[in-house]
Amino acid sequence: MVQFNPVDHPHRRYNPLTGQWVLVSPHRAKRPWQGQQEAILEEQKPPHDPDCFLCAGNRRITGDINPNYAGTFVFTNDFSALMPDTPDSPMLNDPLFQQQSARGTSRVICFSPDHSKSMPELTVTAIEQVIKTWIEQQTELGQHYPWVQVFENKGSVMGCSNPHPHGQIWANSFIPNEVDREDYQQKQYFKQHQSVMLVDYVKRELQDGRRIVVETEHWIAVVPFWATWPFETLLLPKIHIARMVELDQQQRCDLAVILKKLTSRYDNLFQCSFPYSMGWHGAPFMADTTDYWQLHAHFYPPLLRSATVKKFMVGYEMLAEVQRDLTPEQAAQRLRDVSDIHYKETQ
Amino acid sequence: MVQFNPVDHPHRRYNPLTGQWVLVSPHRAKRPWQGQQEAILEEQKPPHDPDCFLCAGNRRITGDINPNYAGTFVFTNDFSALMPDTPDSPMLNDPLFQQQSARGTSRVICFSPDHSKSMPELTVTAIEQVIKTWIEQQTELGQHYPWVQVFENKGSVMGCSNPHPHGQIWANSFIPNEVDREDYQQKQYFKQHQSVMLVDYVKRELQDGRRIVVETEHWIAVVPFWATWPFETLLLPKIHIARMVELDQQQRCDLAVILKKLTSRYDNLFQCSFPYSMGWHGAPFMADTTDYWQLHAHFYPPLLRSATVKKFMVGYEMLAEVQRDLTPEQAAQRLRDVSDIHYKETQ
Ligand SMILES: O=P(O)(O)O[C@H]1O[C@H](CO)[C@@H](O)[C@H](O)[C@H]1O
Ligand SMILES: O=P(O)(O)O[C@H]1O[C@H](CO)[C@@H](O)[C@H](O)[C@H]1O
Repeated sequence: MVQFNPVDHPHRRYNPLTGQWVLVSPHRAKRPWQGQQEAILEEQKPPHDPDCFLCAGNRRITGDINPNYAGTFVFTNDFSALMPDTPDSPMLNDPLFQQQSARGTSRVICFSPDHSKSMPELTVTAIEQVIKTWIEQQTELGQHYPWVQVFENKGSVMGCSNPHPHGQIWANSFIPNEVDREDYQQKQYFKQHQSVMLVDYVKRELQDGRRIVVETEHWIAVVPFWATWPFETLLLPKIHIARMVELDQQQRCDLAVILKKLTSRYDNLFQCSFPYSMGWHGAPFMADTTDYWQLHAHFYPPLLRSATVKKFMVGYEMLAEVQRDLTPEQAAQRLRDVSDIHYKETQ
Repeated sequence: MVQFNPVDHPHRRYNPLTGQWVLVSPHRAKRPWQGQQEAILEEQKPPHDPDCFLCAGNRRITGDINPNYAGTFVFTNDFSALMPDTPDSPMLNDPLFQQQSARGTSRVICFSPDHSKSMPELTVTAIEQVIKTWIEQQTELGQHYPWVQVFENKGSVMGCSNPHPHGQIWANSFIPNEVDREDYQQKQYFKQHQSVMLVDYVKRELQDGRRIVVETEHWIAVVPFWATWPFETLLLPKIHIARMVELDQQQRCDLAVILKKLTSRYDNLFQCSFPYSMGWHGAPFMADTTDYWQLHAHFYPPLLRSATVKKFMVGYEMLAEVQRDLTPEQAAQRLRDVSDIHYKETQ
């Protein structure tokens, strides 16, 4: 009788953070691809682009002029999805038509004045500046909003409309879906096991080793057992830390180190500026307890086979269940097999 | 004091089918777009393409030769994500590493031998053939599998690798995430209200009218109050029907009519072959009761502003909450404003 083997046999894995399953069809990576190819623009970019809205000293669409910033630079998004002063919506006490007004703000954070460099190409010191800014922003906005989403969309395939290295910060008067689910799942786990889900998980991954991509003194990046995107990673501190604002100086510096290594491995995989959406989850602000929360970042990169062929999360995935075409262990192996020094730095 | 107005003010709406919220930021449609544009290939396609794997009489990658089919043609996907004979996975009784083996099959269904015509360009009689095939497939596969996902990915932007009009059918030995959630939500609603959620919803939409896109004798298509994608629609029978296999002859014919009208409106909106993923949800097979289930199809089209600018569900959406840039009522209005006769048929 044939024995089950996760490298050959389709199976489902459970994501304990979201309570959802992912279908793993590892044999599918063998099928030929005749579909859409993504454009890759790898032209050399100048360190300052006079037409860029985010470069230092340039004029934005609103007419505002960016300062001659040296490290990071934060401003309120000129087309913010949320506003701080939205009036309350009348309560529709109706199970089929429920709505509530949403308040918040969206800010843009330029990572560096250098138009030509994305995260892995910045120095560790410059990445430390980004981390410092993320923390300052969360400290400030966390006083007014229960949720502050720090994220980056990188690459035009991820809807990023400007190649200047930048991320976003959206503060919300509500707890968004994804966070609500992670909150619920972590709380249940804590009740049942009297320990923190993702702290337990880190221990297990450190023992196992097969899904580790990068490890530093204080941090670890793994392709999680339940990864959805082909080269998805989860970045976590090794000890229990509920929010980014709690990181001490050493943990911050070391975070810059692992961010540079992880994103360099991504770029090295297909020798391109690897697109992704990434962002941070930690205990919501204004919460009674943060005991069961573990700080973490998700990296969701779309590429599957090459710099130009991405995974499409479409029909079956939208209507039924997310699905992946290689195992998380295979993905981790491939990311471990490339250097953690950026290919442009070795040329 | 400013009054809350859903056309100007960001708000969240609740999707009772999934239990999730969607953030609506209607003022955002005003922002300029400088990001990625999708390629549209509107070249005239021949009715038979000698290089197409799906055209009648042609050879597929496996070497199999397609029959000279006249209506629809179904075959097992040459690179199926699921297989019928996967062995059982050992139970990992571990909260952090749960996995189970998955069995099933994937089939491809060619809608027509005519390589050049997508759904709205087929005759109503040809669409009736497609519906008949969907039903036959579900009848057959529903004897062996609890879930049979019928869907179509249309357009290269939706990961479709072949322009020949076709859809897919994936049968599953398990209930996938999305279906499981809809099952749960509909069951809860039924318990609480002693009525079927989506039957109640149809009544309310028929009374209101603002979100209706097309209505025929037996069917209605609306931009649901909780739509995520810009021009998302929900297609439903007006009376309680749990599964597609239960449709009588009149309801089937009328379904072909509304499918042609709805997809023609889509194509007319930006005068292009409108990409989408669409698929059917109904009561799972082998279920004890189907009382609380209402049959429906979801259309998830990505386009937002034009034939070349789509909505990106990225950073904030992946990490926090799905977000839309126009109200469902505005989207329905725009789809109502165009003709339900396909633009190529009026030329
Ligand atoms: O099966 P196809 O058309 O080759 O592939 C397409 O649809 C599948 C089912 O939604 C997806 O998993 C693939 O990512 C997509 O490219
Ligand atoms: O804000 P940006 O970069 O213009 O826009 C991008 O990120 C947003 C937040 O994830 C998304 O809502 C948009 O669809 C995407 O194009």
